[in-house]
Amino acid sequence: MSRMTDTSPTHAFDIATHLEPKPDGNLIGHTSDAFWNFTGPFGGTTAATLLRAVMEHERRIGDPLAITVNFCAPTARGAFDVALREVRTNRSTQHWTAELSQPDAGIAATATIACAIRRSTWSHRPLQPPPAAAPETLPALPTEGMMAWMGHYDFRFALNMPRRMGRVPSAEPASALSHVWVADKPARALDFLSLTAIADTFFGRIFHVRGALLPIGTVSMTTYFHADAGDLAAVGSAHVLGVADAKVFNKSYSDQTVDLFSRAGALLATSHQIVYFRDVAA
Amino acid sequence: MSRMTDTSPTHAFDIATHLEPKPDGNLIGHTSDAFWNFTGPFGGTTAATLLRAVMEHERRIGDPLAITVNFCAPTARGAFDVALREVRTNRSTQHWTAELSQPDAGIAATATIACAIRRSTWSHRPLQPPPAAAPETLPALPTEGMMAWMGHYDFRFALNMPRRMGRVPSAEPASALSHVWVADKPARALDFLSLTAIADTFFGRIFHVRGALLPIGTVSMTTYFHADAGDLAAVGSAHVLGVADAKVFNKSYSDQTVDLFSRAGALLATSHQIVYFRDVAA
Repeated sequence: MSRMTDTSPTHAFDIATHLEPKPDGNLIGHTSDAFWNFTGPFGGTTAATLLRAVMEHERRIGDPLAITVNFCAPTARGAFDVALREVRTNRSTQHWTAELSQPDAGIAATATIACAIRRSTWSHRPLQPPPAAAPETLPALPTEGMMAWMGHYDFRFALNMPRRMGRVPSAEPASALSHVWVADKPARALDFLSLTAIADTFFGRIFHVRGALLPIGTVSMTTYFHADAGDLAAVGSAHVLGVADAKVFNKSYSDQTVDLFSRAGALLATSHQIVYFRDVAA
Repeated sequence: MSRMTDTSPTHAFDIATHLEPKPDGNLIGHTSDAFWNFTGPFGGTTAATLLRAVMEHERRIGDPLAITVNFCAPTARGAFDVALREVRTNRSTQHWTAELSQPDAGIAATATIACAIRRSTWSHRPLQPPPAAAPETLPALPTEGMMAWMGHYDFRFALNMPRRMGRVPSAEPASALSHVWVADKPARALDFLSLTAIADTFFGRIFHVRGALLPIGTVSMTTYFHADAGDLAAVGSAHVLGVADAKVFNKSYSDQTVDLFSRAGALLATSHQIVYFRDVAA
């Protein structure tokens, strides 16, 4: 596999996560206005871009198993560098580190990525997906007028559709749990890159709990993959079901947990975040 | 705060995670036979050692918020180097990377660590601890003849005490869920270092599920802290309650999730692992 692509990407997600080699051995990418978030690019595309650096590297072995991205600072609109380093390659596992930086602005994100050659083994799935109405039977969340990146996903809430939100939190906390079908819009065959981004598409849990759009920011996000490339290819462009929840909100930070299931009921990935929130008077 | 300690550590855990400065700017540590695991040091002490490098650095701000450790290869018995890098320091967050390596053996572990200055905010705790009998009323797990590191922890199972295990898995999978009170042995006041190690003390979920000691190895582990230094100090040397579970075992890998509660019921940390397992015929 070569870094050089024969054809330029045409899907907005592939454009947003596209990387080209630089003469100094690093890679160069560009932020995409199509995936803009509050104060920088959607974190899901940042994570997917760092994973793409590994996926397109000729020395990669196996499939991604784990990715952790630490968001150190907002990425400014424009070009960025990705520095990738092969830390260690064993017989069936491989470890990488990656950094996203911008000239004069320093490092915006770091990542560690583990790949593995997976073998067919005894399999056991204690966690099964919750019952959820089929996505075709649910309304798509309107995304007009919302942050740009949201327009690139089809969201169908099976549980805990967000209410119309203002800036003033509710007095009583509501449930943090939501069940959401998510697919790329326009459709795109699922792969590790899009699954990595989808793991970050779930709204800040505090939006659900407080019923208000409060300032938040992910500090660190980790996703584990429980499927190999063939399993993901079998999903095609079907929606995946995300079960998103939170366990605690305390002293400026909350967690977020996400389980991502295929329509066939297989747990494809589990993802976790630690998220800053700014408190406002209730 | 200085790297130089006035007194040598006396507790086995502090000896195992002790670091000294080297002239080249790195740190040097030594593996501890007291915390030996199957084929290398207990991963919990490796993670705590990398966190210690940050905790003792004079430029650290705030408390640890997230640590991810990737275990790249077993650490050999003896001395190791820790290289620590301050990636970015913001007003209230700070990002570090750390690497553990040995001469001629390469990198054994990488870590990313995020610290944060936490403020008192609105607080909400959707996840509450399960009912569990008090540790004083439960028998301590005998650890004689088991791996060395286990002798440094007091384990009291409130749910799913492991059965006597052989090498032959059960035909039918059992529950992966266990509730375990854990404390350092001998007693030691809880801090971020010991909590990081405790998050890795839970037995491989596959041991519980298959009723057998199968070959396993953690590839990546992430722990989020939901308490600050004062909250941990208030725990003292009391047991913490770990709720450990797994969602999936598939194609050579399983996840592990751990929630760690204080006796007062506060969620102190949440931790996740992706774990290799070697399949054997049932």
